[in-house]
Amino acid sequence: MNNYRSPLNDLRFVLHHVLKAPEVLATLPAHAETGAEIIDAVLEEGGRFCDQVIGPLYQEGDKGCRFENGGVTTPKGFRAAFQAFTEGGWSGLTAPAEEGGQGLPYVLDGAFKELINGANVAWGTFPLLGHGAVEALRHYGEDWQKQVFLAPLVDGRWTGTMCLTEPHCGTDLGLLKTKAEPLGDGRYAISGQKIFITAGEHDMTDNIVHLVLARLPDAPAGVKGISLFVVPKFKVDREGNVGERNAVACGSIEHKMGLHGSATCVMNFDAAEGWMVGAPNKGLSAMFVMMNSARLGVGLQGLGLIERAWQNALAYAYDRLQMRAAGGAAYPDKPADPLIVHPDIRRMLLTCRAFAEGGRVLALYATLQADVAHNAGDEAARAEADTVVSFLTPIVKGLLTEAAVECAYHAQQVYGGHGYIAEWGMDQIARDARITTIYEGTTQIQALDLIGRKTLMANGAGLKLVLGRIAAFCKENAGNAALAEFLPVLAKRAEQWGELTQRIGAKAAGDANVAPAAAYDYLFYSGYLTLAWCWAQRVAAAEASSASAAFKQAQREVARFYFAKLLPRADYHAAAIDAGPAALMALADADVGVQS
Amino acid sequence: MNNYRSPLNDLRFVLHHVLKAPEVLATLPAHAETGAEIIDAVLEEGGRFCDQVIGPLYQEGDKGCRFENGGVTTPKGFRAAFQAFTEGGWSGLTAPAEEGGQGLPYVLDGAFKELINGANVAWGTFPLLGHGAVEALRHYGEDWQKQVFLAPLVDGRWTGTMCLTEPHCGTDLGLLKTKAEPLGDGRYAISGQKIFITAGEHDMTDNIVHLVLARLPDAPAGVKGISLFVVPKFKVDREGNVGERNAVACGSIEHKMGLHGSATCVMNFDAAEGWMVGAPNKGLSAMFVMMNSARLGVGLQGLGLIERAWQNALAYAYDRLQMRAAGGAAYPDKPADPLIVHPDIRRMLLTCRAFAEGGRVLALYATLQADVAHNAGDEAARAEADTVVSFLTPIVKGLLTEAAVECAYHAQQVYGGHGYIAEWGMDQIARDARITTIYEGTTQIQALDLIGRKTLMANGAGLKLVLGRIAAFCKENAGNAALAEFLPVLAKRAEQWGELTQRIGAKAAGDANVAPAAAYDYLFYSGYLTLAWCWAQRVAAAEASSASAAFKQAQREVARFYFAKLLPRADYHAAAIDAGPAALMALADADVGVQS
Repeated sequence: MNNYRSPLNDLRFVLHHVLKAPEVLATLPAHAETGAEIIDAVLEEGGRFCDQVIGPLYQEGDKGCRFENGGVTTPKGFRAAFQAFTEGGWSGLTAPAEEGGQGLPYVLDGAFKELINGANVAWGTFPLLGHGAVEALRHYGEDWQKQVFLAPLVDGRWTGTMCLTEPHCGTDLGLLKTKAEPLGDGRYAISGQKIFITAGEHDMTDNIVHLVLARLPDAPAGVKGISLFVVPKFKVDREGNVGERNAVACGSIEHKMGLHGSATCVMNFDAAEGWMVGAPNKGLSAMFVMMNSARLGVGLQGLGLIERAWQNALAYAYDRLQMRAAGGAAYPDKPADPLIVHPDIRRMLLTCRAFAEGGRVLALYATLQADVAHNAGDEAARAEADTVVSFLTPIVKGLLTEAAVECAYHAQQVYGGHGYIAEWGMDQIARDARITTIYEGTTQIQALDLIGRKTLMANGAGLKLVLGRIAAFCKENAGNAALAEFLPVLAKRAEQWGELTQRIGAKAAGDANVAPAAAYDYLFYSGYLTLAWCWAQRVAAAEASSASAAFKQAQREVARFYFAKLLPRADYHAAAIDAGPAALMALADADVGVQS
Repeated sequence: MNNYRSPLNDLRFVLHHVLKAPEVLATLPAHAETGAEIIDAVLEEGGRFCDQVIGPLYQEGDKGCRFENGGVTTPKGFRAAFQAFTEGGWSGLTAPAEEGGQGLPYVLDGAFKELINGANVAWGTFPLLGHGAVEALRHYGEDWQKQVFLAPLVDGRWTGTMCLTEPHCGTDLGLLKTKAEPLGDGRYAISGQKIFITAGEHDMTDNIVHLVLARLPDAPAGVKGISLFVVPKFKVDREGNVGERNAVACGSIEHKMGLHGSATCVMNFDAAEGWMVGAPNKGLSAMFVMMNSARLGVGLQGLGLIERAWQNALAYAYDRLQMRAAGGAAYPDKPADPLIVHPDIRRMLLTCRAFAEGGRVLALYATLQADVAHNAGDEAARAEADTVVSFLTPIVKGLLTEAAVECAYHAQQVYGGHGYIAEWGMDQIARDARITTIYEGTTQIQALDLIGRKTLMANGAGLKLVLGRIAAFCKENAGNAALAEFLPVLAKRAEQWGELTQRIGAKAAGDANVAPAAAYDYLFYSGYLTLAWCWAQRVAAAEASSASAAFKQAQREVARFYFAKLLPRADYHAAAIDAGPAALMALADADVGVQS
């Protein structure tokens, strides 16, 4: 009863018309050959895989994984779909040819990930974290480790995990206790318990490669004493021979609110054999390499879920007859009018559309910048794009996952009582979406990252670049009549964004709580501003395209809706920021809950 | 792992100090004897029942009801708890003595309902709808119907239901198809299918009394052709003798997102024997009598869930150690600082506290006004109070249920990954809360009710009374130093509330979509304004009380937080209202989803 169709038309519109991805990629040596035809062909094939193979398993997946005798059985059909995925070569989409990959750009991978997550977000978690493991090994692994682990991870014979969280620490990895004892021959014995390990155990592949944070015996306390280890489920020697079962086992799987098709495992390491990846006590940097890739990936989970919520809510709003339009029957031949005639139903639907289509530009812009950051011939261009991706990553993750929660909420609400019933699948979207604002760094952590490391500590480098690009966009479109109503608002808002940031910076110097108290609202303020830019870009691109008049008008009207009804939320966030930390911090810890 | 303790201290504070309930009740002939001691004794006993009997069953209840062979088995312990409930005399708390009730005021029942919903909202649905049935029978039933049905419903030997929704209609009852054929002897044969019937079938009582909306054979189409019938599960004759099984049966129970402990039934009526309640084709008015009581009840579900979310999140924030305070270690002897030191954790906690404590004033104020509306000696006083309750009901229902969804979200977020795991129970709060914005009229329906029937169509009668009371409060406290920072803001906001309403009214005359397009934002605007008044009242009451300095300060600081960080949301809603309906309605129905 819950459907999904890959939004290929809009993906093509965004990639070709809004972002002009083929033109940007043409400037990158590694992707000079990735023309529009290849992009379209991959999207077409990827869409088919998502719509026909994993999409139909979405509600089945909600029945969950089973844990028995230390093993995890994935939902019916998941294993076969994974086989189809690897056989189709989807696993190594962005990996270079020498690792056995397709060498395609990140932006195309981002588009494909959106489709996977729209079609079946839980299924998508099985391949997802392998990418992070690959990134970590590629950057920090010794040659033999790359030789042994990369190929099977890239082609999907094996999957990967990120083993960070422990029962007493998630956000605060400095507290972690898992130990790594050197065995003298380059091997380490890893002991400890990791929790919330996505795809820590499953029945899809022969081996699973765990990337594990642990402490050496002499490690300093805190985050400066964390090292990274590779620990395969079945032991692998330096020649790549797979041996006996390693001493790592799944102790149980969590009963979660949603994402039931994804196995969230307690992993027990009992002197499991592993090798260090990178330098001793430098595990956190390696972890961040995995994490940044994973954060954009979770932002794309948000995007996929928004699209799924929106598609179903829209279909229901056309189908369900209930009450008459305020001005009188709009469809007098029907017993009642369809929901779509009601203003507040439209508010919820347009909110979903604004986040889905605007968010698509945002997320794919970030992934396209990742391509530039990795592959531009010019070092300065690489550095600049890298700064932009770093700045946008917490916005993509924070805004699109929170928007997913909001849009899932709206979509359920459009369904009324039926939105609460499992059969219709809308509650599953809401339950699945709920984890996205938590894992791979909560919204709070994204917010601190954005305002701290990515802004105040970087002297606003990322913001300045983005503001520069907004200014360039405004200048370029100065004579564009279709944008006349939007550009002055966008320019004014961009100016306010800079001023707000400076106000925070000025106050932050004198009070350590200013930045963390402003962080959450700053994330959303920045998100709404960025999305305004995305919507202005969509209008400009639609206008310049040969799309239908109806589509052009729809883009203009959704942009108007966004500017009139959603962008003003930025003012609320600015007001909350300007109120300062006092309202949050005045009470002593013990008095936050004091009763009469 | 998920706890609840009846917030008796704050209930006493609200009833005695903020609302001065004993003084108000003393002016009502029916409740002149309900002094502070009785209130406290009932609260104390009620709190004990909730904390000791139903509270511990909260997570067990999430395992759900079972449907087998047409029967519904409620979760372990639910039946025994219901027995304890009726034996304790809780079922008939507000019913008059002549019906076998305790004759206590609505405000006390409201307080008790908050406790029930905080302790176990799903369990609370079993007694909840009996109250609506009682109200309908009391107002519209024939004498013999009152004689036969009221006593067992009041004392809890039987429970009641409201059978309104059908598969093709929920909000739009004009579409309903269930038929009632007269049998010639005063009896009717009811046939049709009703869905989403809370407690439609269960194992708690011997009989269940269904109040069913259906159409007579010659009924006009639409809502003017709906009549109300009483249809017991086991037939009852005019003398009250219980006979054979009636032809009404539960066909299945729904698999829902949450509220698993509550049986949501498909009820099939197959020429079931029933009697008309009230006049032919006047069922909708009778339905509204049930509905209004149920709507306040659902608002109190929201309140109970907010309190539960807040209590657990607060405890976790004190307990969980993660990261250091921004200004350096606050608890250097611990391996990390508790979450409570982090500004954004406090933002989430204080939001919960602001809604819980402010919402308590709002909800209990409304129920106290219901007492005045029913029992004041003076007719004008009754009418005035009735107008106020009518105006506040959609605000209580709309705001407190939406706030419950929001606060459950915050509380989960405070728990991080553990908030997503069933064991901790936070996800259950979120899942349970999600239905409250849907049933008994969605938030959208509350919003239309508030802006339409309760405001524009009533010439602003309710708003004027509330604004008058706010003005009186400001005047009364003009010299109160503790309120000096709040009153000018409150007075200014109240003025804006009136102006905004007039702007909407003026525009609504020319465009039927103006009011429904503004409705949602107007509901929240009104809600935030009302809550600002509630918070000002709390500060005034705390200041005037002999409470601890810490409590007084906490009230001031949470009020400051509310005024600085939550009340500005009203501006966003005002901006969205002033943007008008164009942004929502410009696109043709078919183009809302048009793609390139």
